[in-house]
Amino acid sequence: MKKVEEYTEEELVYLQNKLLEQYAHFKHRHLQLDMSRGKPSSEQLDRSNGILRVLDSFELEDGVDARNYGILDGIPEAKRLFSDLLRIPSANIIIGGNSSLNLMYDTIARFMLFGSLGSTPWCKLEKVKWLCPSPGYDRHFSVTESMGIEMITVPMTPDGPDMDMVEELAGQDESIKGMWCVPLYSNPQGICYSAETIERLCSMRTAAPDFRIMWDNAYGVHDIYEKIRLKDVFVMAKKFHNEDRIMYYFSTSKITFPGAGVALLAASEKNIAEVKKHMSIQTIGYDKLNQLRHVKYFGTADGIREHMQGLAKDLRPKFDVVLHTLEREIGDSGFASWMEPKGGYFVDIDTLPGCAKETVALAKEAGVILTPAGATYPYGLDPQDSNIRIAPSFPTVEELQEAMNLLCLCVKLAGVNKLLEI
Amino acid sequence: MKKVEEYTEEELVYLQNKLLEQYAHFKHRHLQLDMSRGKPSSEQLDRSNGILRVLDSFELEDGVDARNYGILDGIPEAKRLFSDLLRIPSANIIIGGNSSLNLMYDTIARFMLFGSLGSTPWCKLEKVKWLCPSPGYDRHFSVTESMGIEMITVPMTPDGPDMDMVEELAGQDESIKGMWCVPLYSNPQGICYSAETIERLCSMRTAAPDFRIMWDNAYGVHDIYEKIRLKDVFVMAKKFHNEDRIMYYFSTSKITFPGAGVALLAASEKNIAEVKKHMSIQTIGYDKLNQLRHVKYFGTADGIREHMQGLAKDLRPKFDVVLHTLEREIGDSGFASWMEPKGGYFVDIDTLPGCAKETVALAKEAGVILTPAGATYPYGLDPQDSNIRIAPSFPTVEELQEAMNLLCLCVKLAGVNKLLEI
Repeated sequence: MKKVEEYTEEELVYLQNKLLEQYAHFKHRHLQLDMSRGKPSSEQLDRSNGILRVLDSFELEDGVDARNYGILDGIPEAKRLFSDLLRIPSANIIIGGNSSLNLMYDTIARFMLFGSLGSTPWCKLEKVKWLCPSPGYDRHFSVTESMGIEMITVPMTPDGPDMDMVEELAGQDESIKGMWCVPLYSNPQGICYSAETIERLCSMRTAAPDFRIMWDNAYGVHDIYEKIRLKDVFVMAKKFHNEDRIMYYFSTSKITFPGAGVALLAASEKNIAEVKKHMSIQTIGYDKLNQLRHVKYFGTADGIREHMQGLAKDLRPKFDVVLHTLEREIGDSGFASWMEPKGGYFVDIDTLPGCAKETVALAKEAGVILTPAGATYPYGLDPQDSNIRIAPSFPTVEELQEAMNLLCLCVKLAGVNKLLEI
Repeated sequence: MKKVEEYTEEELVYLQNKLLEQYAHFKHRHLQLDMSRGKPSSEQLDRSNGILRVLDSFELEDGVDARNYGILDGIPEAKRLFSDLLRIPSANIIIGGNSSLNLMYDTIARFMLFGSLGSTPWCKLEKVKWLCPSPGYDRHFSVTESMGIEMITVPMTPDGPDMDMVEELAGQDESIKGMWCVPLYSNPQGICYSAETIERLCSMRTAAPDFRIMWDNAYGVHDIYEKIRLKDVFVMAKKFHNEDRIMYYFSTSKITFPGAGVALLAASEKNIAEVKKHMSIQTIGYDKLNQLRHVKYFGTADGIREHMQGLAKDLRPKFDVVLHTLEREIGDSGFASWMEPKGGYFVDIDTLPGCAKETVALAKEAGVILTPAGATYPYGLDPQDSNIRIAPSFPTVEELQEAMNLLCLCVKLAGVNKLLEI
C-alpha cells in the first residue's frame, strides 16, 4: 500500500477529491449508529436471560434469607464462585452492587475522607496526584478529576504503562498517591500487562506509603481470540510485602447484564477490614438476590468460562470486521496505526497527529457516533490528538461493516486534509 | 395498678423475689429470639415473591433496554410510580440502588467532599455539627459519627423534635449543618411530625446557609392502625424559599425485600442537578431491571397501597401483642412509659431512669436479644439510660408474646433492683 509520506501534493489533492466524493455518498445514506460506548448487543444480552428465571428458593448456605437484611460483604456462595474464577481467596473478596465503577469511586472517596490504613485523609493534604496510563478509561479519569486529584499522563507501551516513568514519579513524589490500571485487554488498546510490568508495579518503591493501585480487571475473563492470563498480582505483591497497595475490581457487567450484574472488590486482609468498617456504616448490604441469581445461573467458575466462550463467539466476527477493514482500507499506508487485541471490548487506533477530532467529527456528520476524541486521556486532552476508541460490541456485523468503511474513509480524509494544510 | 412510688421497701423486696422466681422459670425455657432489628418476617417477604417472576420484557418506555447500560437516575416508569405514591414530581426524584441508607451516606459524603450548591466542602471546615432528634435511628447517627461530625442530641416531643431547641441552635451556630428526621412513624417512637413542626423546620432561619434536613421518610406508607399523612414538606419549604434545605429519602426495603428493594432520593431542582452531576461520575446507573420489576409488579401507586394493607394485616396482631402486654403487665404502674404508634416498625418504651441497660441484659440472659440500650441515641449514650426499642416484625405472634412477657418482667425486675439500690 502506498505510504502516506510518498504522496506528492498533486496526488494528495486527487485523493482528497476521491475521498470527498465517497464521503458525500455516505452522507446520502443517512446512517444512524452509536459506537461511543462499550455496550453489549441485544443478542449478547439474550444469552443471559435465563438468569432472570433461576430464583426459586432464597435460603443461603449459612441459613440467611437472601430476601431479608443481613450479610454486608456478599453471600458466601457468590464469594466462592468468584474466588474460583479469579483465584483469589474468598476472605479477600467483597461482593458489591451492580457497578464496579461505583466500588472504585467509593474507594477513592474513602481515601479522601479517611485516608488509608491510618494515613492522613487525602482531603486534608494540599496536593494529591495520580498516575494515569493513557490512553485509558475515561470514567476512571473522571473519578480522580472530580476529587480534585491532579492527573499525570503516563504513556502505554505494548507491555503496559511506561514503567521507567512510573517508577521515577512514584518513587520521588509523595503527593502521588496511586494509579489506574486495566491490566488485561486494557481499555482501549487491549494491552495485557507483561509479567515484568506487574512485578515492577508490585515491587517498586513509592514515596507515598499509602500509594494505591486501582487494579480494574474489567476484562478478566473476556478472551476473544486467545486466552491470556496475567501474573497473579496479589501473589506478586505479597512477595514484596506490598499487598496493601492493590485494590482489585471485577464485575459481571459484560458477562451478564451491564445494568444488573454483580461487582466485586478484592484486597489484602487489612484493606478488606478497613473497607468493611466503612461499608458497614454506608449500607446494610447489597442485593443478595442478584448475587444468588448469578450463583444459581452459573453454578461454577467453569459455568462462567463456558458462557464467556459463547460471548466470544458473538464478538469475534465483529472484531474481525474492525481489524480486516482497517487492514484492507488503511493497512501499512501510515494513515493510522493500531494494535490487534486478543480480547476485551475495544480496538484502538492512532490517526496521523492532529486528526482524531476531525475524524470523529466527520464520522458524526455522516451518522456514526464514536467515543469523543481525547476521552481516553486525562482531562480529555490527547496531546497528539490522534487516539480513537472503536467499540464494536453493540452494532450488528453489517452495521459495523458500514461504520468501519466510513471510519476508515474519515481517517484518510482527515489525514489528507491535515497534510494539505501544512 | 399500684404505682411504683407507692411501694414500701418491704413490698419491693417481696416483688423482687416474686419477679426473680418468674425470671428463673423463663431462663429454664431456653428461649432464643432476636428482636434487635426491624426485619420483616418470612411470611411478610412471601407476599412479594411474585415480583421475582414479572420480568418478561426489557424495553422501557423510552426505548432503552433495561438490561444494558444507560439511564443514570432511574427509569421513567419507576419515577412515575413513586411520584404518584409520594406526590413528588418525577423531575425531583432520583431512583437509586437497594438502599436508602447508602443514598444518605453518599449525600453526606458528597457534602463533606464538595460542599452543597457552592458552599465550602465540609471536610475543609474546622468543625461540623449536626442535630440528632433522639431517640432516633442508630444507623443515621453512625453515618454522621463516621464523618467526624459532632452530634447534638435534641429531645423528641409527641409532635416531633423539640423545635424551640432546634430553632435556637440552628439559628445561632453556623457550624450546625443539618439534622436527621424520620418524620412519619419515627424510628423508634412512631411519632408523626405535626404540621407546625414541619412548618417550623421549613421556615426557620439557619445560621448555616447550607443547612440540610435529611428527611428519611422510611415509613411513608407504612400505616398499621390508622392512615396518617404529613404536611407536604416540599410545598412547605418552597413557601419559605427553603426548598434546597430538604433531602428526602424513601425505599421499598420494607415494602418488597430489604435486601433487594429500590431506594430513592427526592430534592429541589438545584439539588437534583448537583446530585446527578456527582452521581454521573460515581456510576453508569443503578439496577434498572429491579426498578422494572417493581413497576411491573405493582403497576400503580394504588397497587403499592393495596400491598401495604396486606403487610399491615400481618403486622397488626404483632403490635397488638406488644401494646396489650405492656398495658397488662406494666399499665400505669410507672415502671415504664410508651407511646402507641399508629404505624411504622417499632414500639419504644422508657423504663425507670438507669434501667434500660439492665433490662436488655436481663432479657439477653434469658434468651431474648433486643436492640442494645443506648443505640437510639448519638454515640450510644442515652442520658437517662431508659430507652428500649422493640421490633415486633420478625418473630411470630406466639414468640413475640413470650418475648414480651419476659421483657415486661425484666423491666419491672430492673426497676425494683434500681429502687432497692437507692
